[in-house]
Amino acid sequence: MGKGRIVSGMRPTGPLHLGHLYGVLRTWISLQSEYECFYFIADWHALTTEYEEPSKIRDYTKELVLDWLSAGLDPEKAVIFVQSEIKAHAELYLLFGMITPVSWLERNPTYKDMLQNLQERDLATYGFLGYPVLQAADILIYRADKVPVGLDQVPHLELTREIARRFNYFYGEGLLPEPEAKLSEVPKIPGLDGRKMSKSYGNAIFLKDPPEVVKQKILSYVTDTLRPRKSDPGDPENRCIAFNLIRLYYTEEEKNAVIEDCKSAKLGCLECKRRLAEKVISALTPLWEERKKWEAKDEWLEILKEGNSKAQAEAKKTMEILRRAIFKKELF
Amino acid sequence: MGKGRIVSGMRPTGPLHLGHLYGVLRTWISLQSEYECFYFIADWHALTTEYEEPSKIRDYTKELVLDWLSAGLDPEKAVIFVQSEIKAHAELYLLFGMITPVSWLERNPTYKDMLQNLQERDLATYGFLGYPVLQAADILIYRADKVPVGLDQVPHLELTREIARRFNYFYGEGLLPEPEAKLSEVPKIPGLDGRKMSKSYGNAIFLKDPPEVVKQKILSYVTDTLRPRKSDPGDPENRCIAFNLIRLYYTEEEKNAVIEDCKSAKLGCLECKRRLAEKVISALTPLWEERKKWEAKDEWLEILKEGNSKAQAEAKKTMEILRRAIFKKELF
Ligand code: SF4
Ligand code: SF4
Repeated sequence: MGKGRIVSGMRPTGPLHLGHLYGVLRTWISLQSEYECFYFIADWHALTTEYEEPSKIRDYTKELVLDWLSAGLDPEKAVIFVQSEIKAHAELYLLFGMITPVSWLERNPTYKDMLQNLQERDLATYGFLGYPVLQAADILIYRADKVPVGLDQVPHLELTREIARRFNYFYGEGLLPEPEAKLSEVPKIPGLDGRKMSKSYGNAIFLKDPPEVVKQKILSYVTDTLRPRKSDPGDPENRCIAFNLIRLYYTEEEKNAVIEDCKSAKLGCLECKRRLAEKVISALTPLWEERKKWEAKDEWLEILKEGNSKAQAEAKKTMEILRRAIFKKELF
Repeated sequence: MGKGRIVSGMRPTGPLHLGHLYGVLRTWISLQSEYECFYFIADWHALTTEYEEPSKIRDYTKELVLDWLSAGLDPEKAVIFVQSEIKAHAELYLLFGMITPVSWLERNPTYKDMLQNLQERDLATYGFLGYPVLQAADILIYRADKVPVGLDQVPHLELTREIARRFNYFYGEGLLPEPEAKLSEVPKIPGLDGRKMSKSYGNAIFLKDPPEVVKQKILSYVTDTLRPRKSDPGDPENRCIAFNLIRLYYTEEEKNAVIEDCKSAKLGCLECKRRLAEKVISALTPLWEERKKWEAKDEWLEILKEGNSKAQAEAKKTMEILRRAIFKKELF
């Protein structure tokens, strides 16, 4: 048996921000020693929303890999690859589509939500409806045991499990594993305005932001709005958005000092955030230095190529088994 | 420019019958000298209806190729290949799915009809809904100019044209041709009971039926039901189902003799159908003899392999152009 297997991907639709770093990437990195990990650039998935203007997907792919490597994803431990280079994902998507009732896809809450939230775009495409089918193919083609997901993605994974069950029911018990959710606790990192950090809200701190920009953004974080003057006592734990970053970057002792000084009105928000900015910048500095090294060489491309061929070999193995299970015999 | 290009496929879901031979296969054969033809075994399409019991698809694939070759499809002229061996069909299906609105698929009359006619099966799958998307990929991956279709398939082809237009609109004018329908006049060949000839109605004469069975089936064709006795004058052209075969297999002179003798009550139906059976059997005999030759050797497999690699080469060319048009640059 050996180690369990993990599969996960990110869509190359923009630069990574702190929300990605602490919400996903750190989890990926922590899993890479314990599990056999397959991490992929989901460029085909990116098309579901970017099909009208997909020309940036390639650039974001490079950015994404550089971010991954700089943050500590290790190509010696994890297989890092590009979805669209493994054509068998498309074949399995097609095969899974044949057994997936449309009703399963229509009732998917993410589908319903996204349709509603993104009404300005013509997103009701066949590919968008079939997003979870492609996702099932991405995961099951590597026979993953576990998938790191956020709570909001659990319904998607449930669909993957249902597709695996249905496939096994038609073509042979045990052919495909039913991967389990690997839920991990992730810190809450709201954007500057307190909403979910997101490129489209314009409230994100990107990993590629230079130090001055990071500082500027941290200084404009919303703090305790009921504390207009320094002399008003603050309530950092309940009313200050910036305090979420303090939780993340400060030691327990440092954090308690802030709480005390804020509540006793000894510390002003500007000064507090200046210190926070320094902390964040020094925490991100190793990542930036790593990134400069990776940027200076073309190794990321070699890493992807090698990852692609490892993924390719695994996908090939699975597809041979599945094709034979469906068609019972080979033609050629 | 050279010759125009034709693409068409048949689903390996059962043995071919006379309806296929005169409705499709003869048309294919007549086109193979004038056009560059790509004819494929649509085994992925077969899964849309056969996914619960797909184990016969491989056997039917062999049968289909043997039927094609026996009827006169010429691998020196046409590219004969297996859809599922050209994985790029699946990739293009995925890419087309990203730009195809679900509403286009839902309004497809064939989709609505089949859903209604086949209510006993759980056919409302994602793959079934996307049948026309895969079909568009099948056709456009070879940049076909023309597609031989029956009148009932015109809406499907219209969807292919719409997908091509939308693709060109997003990614570059002229990338994909808008293939035109090649409508050909086909003779009417009803089944034994007068309904459309079909495996599922149990009213078909199969190409692989031995002569005795063909004879038996022709003798049980419905004739003029208002003519219970030989002494009643018949109305072959308006009331006799078997007469449709007479139209097909008799010379003008022979046919007129039947009309006269039937109308004047000189010819009884049993005798008439006995003669017809002889005609049909002698018309099919060359095909059966050809078939025996093809069955005796494994050449059909070599023909498919060669066809696959020709199709593969063409598909590869198109996909390179289309991928670059979508993503603007190459990664590797
Ligand atoms: S002093 Fe610091 S913790 Fe207190 S409200 Fe201001 S920014 Fe938040
Ligand atoms: S005699 Fe021949 S043509 Fe006339 S009704 Fe009978 S089968 Fe038909």
